[in-house]
This record gives sequence, structure tokens and C-alpha cells, in this order.
Amino acid sequence: MRKDQQRLTQGMLFTDLYQLTMAQVYFRQGLHQKKVRFEYFYRRNPDYGLHQAGYCIFAGLEWLIEWMLETKFQDEDLEVLRDLRTSSGENLFAADFLEWLKGAGDFSGISLWAVAEGRVVHPNVPLIVVEGPFAMAQILETALLNHLNYQTLVATKAVRIKQAGMGKLLLDFGMRRAHELGAIAGTRAALIGGADFSSNVGTSVVLGFPPKGTHSHSLVQAFMAIGEGELSAFRAFAEIYPDDCLLLVDTINTLHSGVPHAIKVFEELRRKGHRPLGIRLDSGDLAYLSIQSYKMLCEAGFSECHIVLSNQLDELIITQIITQIQQEAPAAGIHPEQLIDHLIFGVGTSLITSSGQSALDGVYKLTALAEGQSWRPAIKVSETPAKTVNPGFKELWRLYDQRKKAVGDLLCLQGEELLAMEKIVLHHPVDPDRFRILKKSEIAEMEKLLEPVLENGRRLGNVPTIEAMRKRRQADTSCLDLGVKRLINPHIYHVSLSEKLWELKHEVLRRQARVNDS
Amino acid sequence: MRKDQQRLTQGMLFTDLYQLTMAQVYFRQGLHQKKVRFEYFYRRNPDYGLHQAGYCIFAGLEWLIEWMLETKFQDEDLEVLRDLRTSSGENLFAADFLEWLKGAGDFSGISLWAVAEGRVVHPNVPLIVVEGPFAMAQILETALLNHLNYQTLVATKAVRIKQAGMGKLLLDFGMRRAHELGAIAGTRAALIGGADFSSNVGTSVVLGFPPKGTHSHSLVQAFMAIGEGELSAFRAFAEIYPDDCLLLVDTINTLHSGVPHAIKVFEELRRKGHRPLGIRLDSGDLAYLSIQSYKMLCEAGFSECHIVLSNQLDELIITQIITQIQQEAPAAGIHPEQLIDHLIFGVGTSLITSSGQSALDGVYKLTALAEGQSWRPAIKVSETPAKTVNPGFKELWRLYDQRKKAVGDLLCLQGEELLAMEKIVLHHPVDPDRFRILKKSEIAEMEKLLEPVLENGRRLGNVPTIEAMRKRRQADTSCLDLGVKRLINPHIYHVSLSEKLWELKHEVLRRQARVNDS
Repeated sequence: MRKDQQRLTQGMLFTDLYQLTMAQVYFRQGLHQKKVRFEYFYRRNPDYGLHQAGYCIFAGLEWLIEWMLETKFQDEDLEVLRDLRTSSGENLFAADFLEWLKGAGDFSGISLWAVAEGRVVHPNVPLIVVEGPFAMAQILETALLNHLNYQTLVATKAVRIKQAGMGKLLLDFGMRRAHELGAIAGTRAALIGGADFSSNVGTSVVLGFPPKGTHSHSLVQAFMAIGEGELSAFRAFAEIYPDDCLLLVDTINTLHSGVPHAIKVFEELRRKGHRPLGIRLDSGDLAYLSIQSYKMLCEAGFSECHIVLSNQLDELIITQIITQIQQEAPAAGIHPEQLIDHLIFGVGTSLITSSGQSALDGVYKLTALAEGQSWRPAIKVSETPAKTVNPGFKELWRLYDQRKKAVGDLLCLQGEELLAMEKIVLHHPVDPDRFRILKKSEIAEMEKLLEPVLENGRRLGNVPTIEAMRKRRQADTSCLDLGVKRLINPHIYHVSLSEKLWELKHEVLRRQARVNDS
Repeated sequence: MRKDQQRLTQGMLFTDLYQLTMAQVYFRQGLHQKKVRFEYFYRRNPDYGLHQAGYCIFAGLEWLIEWMLETKFQDEDLEVLRDLRTSSGENLFAADFLEWLKGAGDFSGISLWAVAEGRVVHPNVPLIVVEGPFAMAQILETALLNHLNYQTLVATKAVRIKQAGMGKLLLDFGMRRAHELGAIAGTRAALIGGADFSSNVGTSVVLGFPPKGTHSHSLVQAFMAIGEGELSAFRAFAEIYPDDCLLLVDTINTLHSGVPHAIKVFEELRRKGHRPLGIRLDSGDLAYLSIQSYKMLCEAGFSECHIVLSNQLDELIITQIITQIQQEAPAAGIHPEQLIDHLIFGVGTSLITSSGQSALDGVYKLTALAEGQSWRPAIKVSETPAKTVNPGFKELWRLYDQRKKAVGDLLCLQGEELLAMEKIVLHHPVDPDRFRILKKSEIAEMEKLLEPVLENGRRLGNVPTIEAMRKRRQADTSCLDLGVKRLINPHIYHVSLSEKLWELKHEVLRRQARVNDS
């Protein structure tokens, strides 16, 4: 798209039309300034088909906040809206509504409570609570969902791939298969969730990371086409990058051409006092080839070299490669753990597009309208009880046992004195007959997860660094039971309602049924 | 992300690091200005697991060209590169290379031949040929793949969903689940491939389409929370949009509350001389509910109303809904085709993220280097013959039979006089023993698919409209055999090599083997 058109697509009109048409209804009904609360949550952890996530890593919040701080209705946006027509050719948006948007069409009235980025999160509990004037809180919906759904999806995939790779270096190589400009947010989410570095130059630099990369087949092909061989290509690369020499060895034949040529060049580098970085394998049986390549490297005295594996990797394929190395390497005289320690995983498509589950089903639901100093719960009486939103303003707590393992997330009403209770009743979110009771002595620690991050459009606190988000992720994942972290068929982490919230939910459901019958 | 950082991430540094490090190798070796050719192609039609595409719809080209026309290395980009360091702390990029990029770092030397957007395309044939100086043609790789892979993926999903919906109106509702800013390109691709309209306001307007939408549950919930009911919410909506009144009827209970309330409001509108648009169903058994709702609408004299179906639709679910309507509607006294004619499909997640197959595996391969006035083929000798790129500059032809059906795409060397041949040998791209021979009399028409679109950085011809791309799509799909269009297990469309190209490929493979052995 032309750059002069880009602003129009990324500003306030980065939204679904119905947010604006509904806002006009609220305006006409005098509800547009009424304070309301919406909540963001997702319903199911990603299910990739053959494997499933047991939790998510929350991401996207800070970029959402930056978008909110910088975005308001511009004259150009309002002109677009002024030109839209109804079926009968009238103006879709009235002049007084547009005039109101011109003055009040920003997010300065919005406050947010949110879980911090990088944290482990679970389905069906609010990860963000939005409070503010109805019209602008409604208009926020599309951008909010768009920012959070995608980055949380990718951060979740990244933590899985990192786990499968036993914590070894993980590189994001996904730009070319990303959903166009989504590559930018995808790189960020990958870095939060588990990737150590990315090949994406601009985004890496903006986020404070050096971009990483090797070289592609075209370098070798070019030297072959001009009558020189793979060896010349490797030498040319090594000459310019003697301390970053990482050679792609599968253009012709990995074990008979690529690795021997790489070793020859590495020996030349060594004689000049440089330490080669390693090789990259991008085709064939990566487990077998990495064992054989590493054996050749070791025999030539390059046991410190790394082996970057790439080519359609995902968490299951990486798990399988590692298992195969553990089984096969000893027969080749290689200590499996030593080889695994030198592996680097370059992951593209599957990370940045979250292959197998390409979207997180996050939603944004109205939960309450202000009425004087109090709040009226709003609820959607869905045909499936699981989809019925919990009413009222809630607090989200994480409970830890004596082992410092998280035993469950608990949703309460604001002001419930959890700490003062002798025992806590944890209600299954839907089934009235399922609950459990925890005695105070069983709970070592309770932590509040929702923190205020935006107050009337003003950011509270500093912008956390990506590094800080990663630390949170590591701390949170270390508190998860191994069963919840299983890549396949994970154990279900418990998310419960407090007794009071459970009662309120059912009272509201009964009341709505009455209103509607009358 | 902050807007002031955005340019850095979307300009020339929207690339993988290795493109730049390789470009520096070419620069140091004096190869950077050497004219080369790269080709873009994809290897496999999307396979969504339970169902598979038999072809793709090509999209993304014009936005790629616009990006190329507007993007060059800026001082800011070069400063970033100047600051990057090697492992040993040296500058990663040398001053003379950066100086060269400052002067020559744009796409003014690049020419493109391409298939037009909206056309039906097939695997393993070049959809774009890039010609230009090696360094900049290499640097183009990431952005080119990023633009084309995603839009082609979504346009392909869109044509499938449109086909499943028997050509009825298709609305893109995907923004909230899109891969962040990828929503923008996704909307465009959806509009090319099969969506009639989109809810995405900014992007629709930029592309010349009115955005479309209905309303969400929160409108009804708000009226319920303030003690009024669904009926009041519908009335408020109808009052403002009397000629665009499309009501979401499933907030409480579709058949017992939503539809009766909608009918009441529609009757009020009718009395005032307006024609209501219809209703939207977003949960439950959409086939059953659409039959029952339509029956109620017809009985109230609103048989012209539309029924928008939404909620996790994809091509198989739509097919199933239509089948069920065809079987069940007669028992309810409804003519199935009449109901189907009034359906509108609102598709979100599955369209914009291409659920089931979230990436197209398009690649960009070096095929030739200029040598004086002639070209030397470059080839990657992969371990799998299917992955070995076809050498040389090629032409792509589509052959049609007497029925005006496409019988196959044929890849030839430039200058092969297909039209003069008495019979054409079509070689299987990999298997030497599989070929077929077409007599001239069996071919009614031959069409060249690759056209020059960019000459030394200058656009040739006008920018086609989205409408023109849709016409091409419709013309091309009407020339496909029904078997190729099957949503599940489609018949394989034949893509072949000419005899001369087949011979050249094998000669080059033999020659490369010799170069490498020596």
C-alpha cells in the first residue's frame, strides 16, 4: 500500500465498522459517556491438533497501550466517516456524532487493569479490565483484540518451542512466512515468549536486540554459477565475517561437500586466530546429519562449533530430533548432551504463524455499567453456560502451595477478603456440583494478577523491558507443575470462581431472565 | 509500537539480517552489480488437514510493487547498520558498503515479470521473475516473500469459502483474530479472493469499498443492564439505521426472543416505509436456526430479509450448513434455494488466518547470473529432485482445450516456439518416465502468464483495480475443471516442463556435479 494511505488504515479506523455504528447508537441514546466495564479473556488454550497448550504467555499489552496513547480521531478519519452512506444514500454518521468524535474521540477516558506481559495465563479469566465511557470503550474493542490475540498466540508458541529445544538458543526466522506486517508484532511476541534473537533487522533493533542470521543457498549457488565452488563461497563469507562464520552446508551434499568444505575454511580461520561459529543444516534428516556433522567437526577439533537446525521445525519435530540424538549419538561416539548443548534452533513458519492453531479466541465482553456510585452487572445469557460471562468487577488471584507451585487461579469479587478466610471455596466455573475447598494452611502464597496500568488514558509506571517480561515468564513457568507444561495432552490447570462470585453470577442470570420475560 | 519507531521496522530494514550480510559479501567480491535472476514460486497448494486446495489465487503483487517504489535505504537505516557489531566487537558492516547502499540502495535497477493478481496459479512454476543487480535483488527477498505468501494464502482461502457459500455474499470479519497489522493486507487479499466486503473500515475505504457490519451483543447487554430489554436495543438501532437494520438475534434466545423482537421492530419499520435488511445468527445450530428464523420472517412477510451467519465458519462448515438446509428446509415448508439465496456469510478467523494452513510455502530462488549478453543457470542441487529449481529464464504458458478448460501450465525456455510445434511434449517436473504428448489439434488456445510489470524500478501499465482482479479470478476459475475445484481431495492440475527445459535442467545438474567434484 502507498505510505500516504497507511495512516488511515492503522489509526482509529483500524476497526470493525460495527464499533462505530454502535457508538452512534449509544450517542443518540445518551449512553456514550456512561462508564462501563469490558473484559478481555480467551476461552481455550491453543490446540494444535496433535498437541495442545496447557497455558498461554500473555503478550501485546504495551504495544496496545502505545497505540491507545497515540491514536485519536483525525480530521482525515472523520472525513472518511462523513462520506459513508446508508443503503438509502443518507449519511451513515450524523454531523453531531462526528463533531463529538472530533472532540472526545480518543482514549483519555479509559483506564485499564491488566496482567503483566510475559506472565503465564489461563482461559476464562479476565486478563484485562477496561473501564471508561461506553462509546470509546466499544470502539477500542477491535484494536485491543487484534493486539492481544496475536501476540499472546505467538508468545505461547515460542515458550513451547523453547521448552522442546531444552532451553537451547532459539532464533526467530519467520518474517517471510508471517502475515505481512504482522511479522513485526510476531517478532516481538517471539522474543517475549522464548526466542532469544530474531533475523528481523528493524524490529530487533527497535526492541534492543541484535538481529541474527547466517547465509542462504543463493550465496553458494552464485559461486557455483560463476565456475567456482562451494569452498570459494565459504571462503568469501569467512573472509568478511571471520568471527561470525556460520556456514550453510546443505546446498550440494551436507556430509560429502558442505561439512568438509566448512571444516577446511574453519581450519584456515583458526590459523589466523579466529573461532568459527558453526554450521547450519536446512534439509534432510536433521538428527542424523547433526550427529554426523558434529562428529566430523569434533574430529577436526571444532567441538565448540554450533549447529543451527532449520527447515519447518516446530515443538514436536524438535522433540523428536532431540530424542533421536539421545538414542543415536552414542553409536557414533558422540555424547548426546554435548551435541545438544551445541544446537541452535532456527524456527520460522511454525513460530510466527502458530502453525496448527493460527488464532487465539480472545474476546472482549461488556460486564458492567455504572449506575451512580455502583455498578450494574451486564451479562450475555448464552445458550452454553460456559460462554456466559462472569458479572461484576473482579479480582484475579493466583494461589501457590508450599512447593511454590501454582495450584490454581481464583476469580473473586472486588473486596473479598481472601487473606482473612480460614478456608477458600473454589467453584468450577460452570458445573454447580464441582468445587473444592482449600484450607488456609494449604496455601503458602496468594498473588493478585490484575494491576492498574492506565488511568484515564495516562500510563502508570514505566514501560517494562522485553528482558523483564522474559524474567516474568521464566519465574511463572517454573511455578507450573510439569503436567501443565506437557506439550501433548497437558494436565488442566484449575481456574475457579469464589463462592460470592458464583452466587452473584446465578443471581444475575435469574434477574435477566425476569427482565426479558416481562 | 511507537509511531516514530514504525518506519524503521517497515522500511528497508523489514528484512532478514542475512540478506544484508550476503549483500556485503557480493559487494566485497565485486558481484553486487552483477545482473541476476531470482524466481518466486510455491511448492504445494495449501493443505488444511481435512481439506486441500487444488489451486491458489495469486495476490500481493501491487502492494509489493508500491513498497519497492517507496522504499530505499534512509540515513536512519544506515545508522542502525553502522551500529551493528560482530562477535569480536568490530563493525558488522564496513563503511564503503554502507556508502554504496546510501547511493545505490533502492530498487531502481530491478525489473519484474509477474502473473497478474487474482489469477489462478499452481505450484512449482515461477509467479514472479526478478532481474537486477545481485545485492539489491537479494535484499528484496524477505519483503517479496512476506507480501506474496500471505496475500496469496488468504485470497486462496477466500475463493474456497466463496465457493462453499455458493457465491452468496461473503463478508470478511477477521480483524480481531488477524496477525496484528497483517489484518490490513488480509482484508485486501480477502476482497481479491472472494469476500464481497469487509468490516475493516480504514482498509476498505482505501481500497474503494464501503465497510460493512451489524452490531454486537454488547448493544443488547447494555439495554438489558439498564433495565430495558432486547426489544428496546433493537428499536434504538432501527431508529438510527432504518434502511440498514440488521439485528443480532442470539443474545438471549434466538427463536423465543431475538427473532420475535426483530420481527416486531421490522413491522414498525415497514409501517414507516423502510425495508429491514435482516438478522444475524452467531451461535447454536446455524442450519436449524436459519430455517426456523426464515420461516418466522416469511410468515411475517419478510421473506426478502437476509440472514447473516457467523461464528467460526470455514469452507467445510458452510458446505455442511448448506447441505443441511437443503435436506431439512422442505419439512419446515421452506424452499431451500430461496433461503440459501438470502444467506450472507460473515467469516473471521478462518479466512484472515487461513485456519488449518497458516502459511504458504513460497520461496525465492536464484536461477541465473548474467555473463556478458548471456546467462549462466544457477541451480541448487537439493537432495530431493522435486526441490531442484528449474534453471534459466522461462516462460509460463497456460493451455486450454476446446471446452475452454485449462488443461495444464507449461514451463518453457524463453523463445521456444510453442505455437509453431505440431505436438507439445509435457514432462512431469521430476519423474523422467512420466510425460504426455498433446497434439496441436487438442489445444484451442495458449496464453502467456508472465508479463513485465516493472522495468528498472519503473512501473509498466496502470495499477489494476481490485474489481479487475476479481474479474480475472472469476474468468480463471470458470476455466478450471470441477475436479480441481473440489474442496476435499481435489484433482491434481498438471504443471509440466517442455522438452528443452527438461534437457537443460539435467545438463545443468550434471555440470554442477562436475564443478563440485573438481
